[in-house]
Amino acid sequence: MIALPISERRRLLSAAREMSEAARRVILAKAQNGFRVRTKPDSSFVTDADLAAEKSFRAEISRRYPDHGILGEELPAVNPDSPYQWILDPIDGTLSFTRGIPLYGSILGLFHEGLPVVGVIDHPALKERFSAGAGLGAWRNQDKLRLKKNGRSPEEEIVATGDRGHFKKMGREAEYDRLLLRHPQVRSYADCFGHTLAFSGAIGAMVDYGIRVWDLAASQVLIEEAGGRYLGLERQGDGASAFHGIILGRPEVVEWLEGLFAPAEAAA
Amino acid sequence: MIALPISERRRLLSAAREMSEAARRVILAKAQNGFRVRTKPDSSFVTDADLAAEKSFRAEISRRYPDHGILGEELPAVNPDSPYQWILDPIDGTLSFTRGIPLYGSILGLFHEGLPVVGVIDHPALKERFSAGAGLGAWRNQDKLRLKKNGRSPEEEIVATGDRGHFKKMGREAEYDRLLLRHPQVRSYADCFGHTLAFSGAIGAMVDYGIRVWDLAASQVLIEEAGGRYLGLERQGDGASAFHGIILGRPEVVEWLEGLFAPAEAAA
Repeated sequence: MIALPISERRRLLSAAREMSEAARRVILAKAQNGFRVRTKPDSSFVTDADLAAEKSFRAEISRRYPDHGILGEELPAVNPDSPYQWILDPIDGTLSFTRGIPLYGSILGLFHEGLPVVGVIDHPALKERFSAGAGLGAWRNQDKLRLKKNGRSPEEEIVATGDRGHFKKMGREAEYDRLLLRHPQVRSYADCFGHTLAFSGAIGAMVDYGIRVWDLAASQVLIEEAGGRYLGLERQGDGASAFHGIILGRPEVVEWLEGLFAPAEAAA
Repeated sequence: MIALPISERRRLLSAAREMSEAARRVILAKAQNGFRVRTKPDSSFVTDADLAAEKSFRAEISRRYPDHGILGEELPAVNPDSPYQWILDPIDGTLSFTRGIPLYGSILGLFHEGLPVVGVIDHPALKERFSAGAGLGAWRNQDKLRLKKNGRSPEEEIVATGDRGHFKKMGREAEYDRLLLRHPQVRSYADCFGHTLAFSGAIGAMVDYGIRVWDLAASQVLIEEAGGRYLGLERQGDGASAFHGIILGRPEVVEWLEGLFAPAEAAA
């Protein structure tokens, strides 16, 4: 149960949207004017734009809430013992960003005493922002999101996944291959684009493996406030370097997928 | 060798862009105001929007060029013996369109005596139009496209595919599965979105199987004018009901993929 009054949650959601707007401007300016790409030790990419956007988020958070904690992909943690923790990925889908594929996004989530309070995923190039607050609702830009029954079976819904390599990071490539055989409509919508398709009901669900805590920081509150279900399937490792496997989407599609992706010990 | 003078090709390209713009307006109005969905005998979808957009294309073509041939996905062929043939798919990615995934597009290609002269792929929801004319060049909106050497190996490039089910239609699911094992960066960017990512160099190449003649009608001239390579791998069946398998993209990535996807008889 979240201990924060509804009025405070509203203010925090409003602040998170403003911070996301500021980061969007930083990212689009970098996309327009050029940026440098560097390969990280784990062979993923980082750019000037990631760093500039993360600095924008951090400056906005610290100015408004100097006591709050911050955990971001590219820079060290701040106030790690605060009950308020902002978790963020300035550009989720850096590979897409560097290649000019417009489906990347920024992710910002706020947790209070470990519970998700606010989530925002923004697609700067698509000019689409998804935001939600616990007990407040979920929105796509100005439109309230509400997943309605649509009469489709789980097999008639599109199921999104990340890249096969992300499943492999957690030793789950066999489950991924089984999904491709069992479900007629699987598409890889990598990174947060798959998540936002689930919030709006465009797809039935997303199965995302091999992701870190900032990649999922906004998604639980967003899907639940939209009327869907969030399922944390497994975690390998500890803290910020842990890999996670999650499913999010329409409740009946999440349930259909749960059987295929239950961790080996549970499935045995 | 195309028999049409350059000035005529320029006029045809300009007309094709205008017809694409008219169809974009029809499609966006339907997306905004609602449409009905019907399942076709082959279990694919068609909507009011597909029909309205195809009628828009046909009215524009017939008004400007009453003697030209027209072959479209949803309505009967016109003037099938004309040396000029317009081939079109009013909404490629109807499933995405019906679900609100913004990556669908309209496709328009003109052939003269069997050779591709003009190609336009438009993404109405993304406000992105790709157009090319043989010997004239290729554009993304107003920007000229030119695939440049980038120092990346074929394995470092993203390779896009359609859904696995499309490979299965041609009995090529084993080749698809082999691609997933051999290449570290495969993503399904279904329908013409994968094609347009190849034209702009965002991905290294697209491998597309189980598609019909209108799905590929614009792509050869677009990728070749952008400096890339188009490879028709195989065709199963005849005329408008034939399924095609093609690869398009950066020449070195197309070559890398060619080995994996060479038809069984050639590979043996």
